[in-house]
Amino acid sequence: MSMLYTQTYAAGRDAADELADFRGRFRLPDENLIYLDGNSLGPLPLVTVERMAQVIEHEWGQRLIRGWNDGWYTRSQRIAEKLAPLVGARPDELVLADSTSVNLFKLAYAALALQEGRTEILSDESNFPSDLYLLQGLISIFRHQHRLRLIESPDEIVVPFAAVKAAIHDQTSLVCLSHVAFKSGFVHDVPQITRAAHDRGALTLWDLSHSVGALPVQLDAWDVDLAVGCTYKYLNGGPGSLAFLFVRTDLQERLTSPIWGWFGQRSPFEFGLEYQSAPGIRRFLVGTPPVLSLSALEPALDLCLEAGVDRIRRKNMALTEYFVTLCREVLAPLRYRLGSPPEPHQRGSHVTVRHEEAYRICQALVNPVADAPAIIADYREPDNLRLGFHALYTRYVDVYRAVVRLEEIARCHEYQRFSTTRASVT
Amino acid sequence: MSMLYTQTYAAGRDAADELADFRGRFRLPDENLIYLDGNSLGPLPLVTVERMAQVIEHEWGQRLIRGWNDGWYTRSQRIAEKLAPLVGARPDELVLADSTSVNLFKLAYAALALQEGRTEILSDESNFPSDLYLLQGLISIFRHQHRLRLIESPDEIVVPFAAVKAAIHDQTSLVCLSHVAFKSGFVHDVPQITRAAHDRGALTLWDLSHSVGALPVQLDAWDVDLAVGCTYKYLNGGPGSLAFLFVRTDLQERLTSPIWGWFGQRSPFEFGLEYQSAPGIRRFLVGTPPVLSLSALEPALDLCLEAGVDRIRRKNMALTEYFVTLCREVLAPLRYRLGSPPEPHQRGSHVTVRHEEAYRICQALVNPVADAPAIIADYREPDNLRLGFHALYTRYVDVYRAVVRLEEIARCHEYQRFSTTRASVT
Repeated sequence: MSMLYTQTYAAGRDAADELADFRGRFRLPDENLIYLDGNSLGPLPLVTVERMAQVIEHEWGQRLIRGWNDGWYTRSQRIAEKLAPLVGARPDELVLADSTSVNLFKLAYAALALQEGRTEILSDESNFPSDLYLLQGLISIFRHQHRLRLIESPDEIVVPFAAVKAAIHDQTSLVCLSHVAFKSGFVHDVPQITRAAHDRGALTLWDLSHSVGALPVQLDAWDVDLAVGCTYKYLNGGPGSLAFLFVRTDLQERLTSPIWGWFGQRSPFEFGLEYQSAPGIRRFLVGTPPVLSLSALEPALDLCLEAGVDRIRRKNMALTEYFVTLCREVLAPLRYRLGSPPEPHQRGSHVTVRHEEAYRICQALVNPVADAPAIIADYREPDNLRLGFHALYTRYVDVYRAVVRLEEIARCHEYQRFSTTRASVT
Repeated sequence: MSMLYTQTYAAGRDAADELADFRGRFRLPDENLIYLDGNSLGPLPLVTVERMAQVIEHEWGQRLIRGWNDGWYTRSQRIAEKLAPLVGARPDELVLADSTSVNLFKLAYAALALQEGRTEILSDESNFPSDLYLLQGLISIFRHQHRLRLIESPDEIVVPFAAVKAAIHDQTSLVCLSHVAFKSGFVHDVPQITRAAHDRGALTLWDLSHSVGALPVQLDAWDVDLAVGCTYKYLNGGPGSLAFLFVRTDLQERLTSPIWGWFGQRSPFEFGLEYQSAPGIRRFLVGTPPVLSLSALEPALDLCLEAGVDRIRRKNMALTEYFVTLCREVLAPLRYRLGSPPEPHQRGSHVTVRHEEAYRICQALVNPVADAPAIIADYREPDNLRLGFHALYTRYVDVYRAVVRLEEIARCHEYQRFSTTRASVT
């Protein structure tokens, strides 16, 4: 057995970790619970507890309606300024608003309207199903002038660039993909695909939900047209925190949102009866934002900015690589197979392992016998177990202990205590 | 001067008020601030402070992703069950989701698609401009097959039923109105208008933002087709709290949301690649809800339910009637004019007074000289001052003191201290 597979080795890596101190700034459950699901929901930053008490008791409780003039009205914009460096965008190319789904709907609608005459939307089978549903709905709105073409992945892990490039043609209106695939964690080559799309006159819309905060994103340098993403995964903005959308500067005036909301109106407080879209990115705002959920995001973004996304990515790659190495050495003989790309730079910040008993193994991880630590990971049909790692709070020791548990559970058939009936909703 | 215009009289009314105790259950600023803007943003219920600490520190902080199974996933539904009696609907006719604007977009789109072939959407000039903007956007999506017809109000206060009825014809697809007008507070006769619409084969979509929680709404008894509304005004759900939408049971299966979100998918956690809409009302959900903002609504609804909307309405009418009476006696000679209907049953729960100096008077109310109380009301272009009253926390003494201040400000020209330049965003 490798010397890597020891608590001592893992603890040594933690001792040398320049980001180790960030862990103390999150409210994590006790030592007996290892949280490897930040790819679904990031944990609570301590500073957010204070901030939310301030928002609720002072801003709402004391200031009441004056909260809008004090800062709520411009809060989305201020948060956009903080998010901008994390995605390589200008602040006036971003807004925080609505859900990822509603934002994708707005931008994909606007793109299809601009590309009228073209007939194909391109995506892939590893994209979020939710994104595909929205595109299917838009095809119905546009009265079936388009079809949705989905690129297959030969190994269910990687979608080769050549396959994407070959699928883009002169009828492609929009290439709509996830930067990081939610199941396998595969990372698309955004600049290369964007260039290939532009060569054929297609627009690109990237879903950054599984990349923002975990790996560097350079929307402007990559010449991306449109993007959306959520903020409750690697950005730690809280359950259902507001989503963002990005529109490249020179496209903003050419696009029309389908949802003409008063926050996207040029002068909303004149209460004129005719809609006139606001200049620039603000036209993609719709209604009154949920201020509590919006406010929780700001202190969480500060933590990411302080650590720096390059340092976060470096450690994230080291964490996933440590896990994958142990996976090959320790878990492969127990019928675990890697469901993520083998190369660290091709992976996001979670690793998927596949096992025919993945569902019950996931149950056994979180409900251990005796004094083993509980481990929260998540399960995705049909046989995927996802383990998410985040430089800001995941330790190498956590990775080590997760592998120990995965080994024990498979070796001792601990999962047999659980039913195969699916109960969980997440 | 009337005996009604005395602190003693007002205090006597408060002493006899059966709802007086509810005031102590809100976090209101000190005695020197009178809050008459609950029609824009309701104050913070004390119980919400505790509830939000529990949601943030326990549900998010300790339970992490497990929060979804513990209750987040069904929270919208549970809140719908509480909201249902306040709007006279069945719980499975309501969802809490998104903003009022996004919900109106979804329902109006679905209605227009169902009514294909008809060419006119009917609304009125006293409707929220934001609702009109959304309808204008939909007309663009449907490639100008419809026009938007706006009924005028002869006195800018009342929109007579006869005018609405006369405007509905066989080409009317949708009648989309606000139950209570945001500026004048005029209350439309929902059942009569709905009947007139149905007689011509039109559907109705009501915006309840200014009525829900303040006056009884009977969506099922009134045979309403569709409705939306916000929850941050008279329901006290917090800034930008989630909105709701209502679809009459027998219409649900006939309508298709334009936004095919994964929360509206039949089995979202199967992650199938083809959208299949959920049965019933759930198909109108879209993305992951902002859980913090959603959670703040529930304890606030409990307060309304405990007081009962009939008792709330009775006191609200008494409060507005007391204000209107004093307005006639005390304020009319000072060039204030009533901008709301004279009859209490024709008014919602705010009263608008018009004055050529309304903008500066609004500034003087909130920034008093010496030891006069500050009064928060709001201003709406061009000359409207809105004062909102809510049975759960407004006292008769507050009404009395507001009139005293309005009188002083006009009589002593206190407003001259302020600039006429519009600075406020709300």
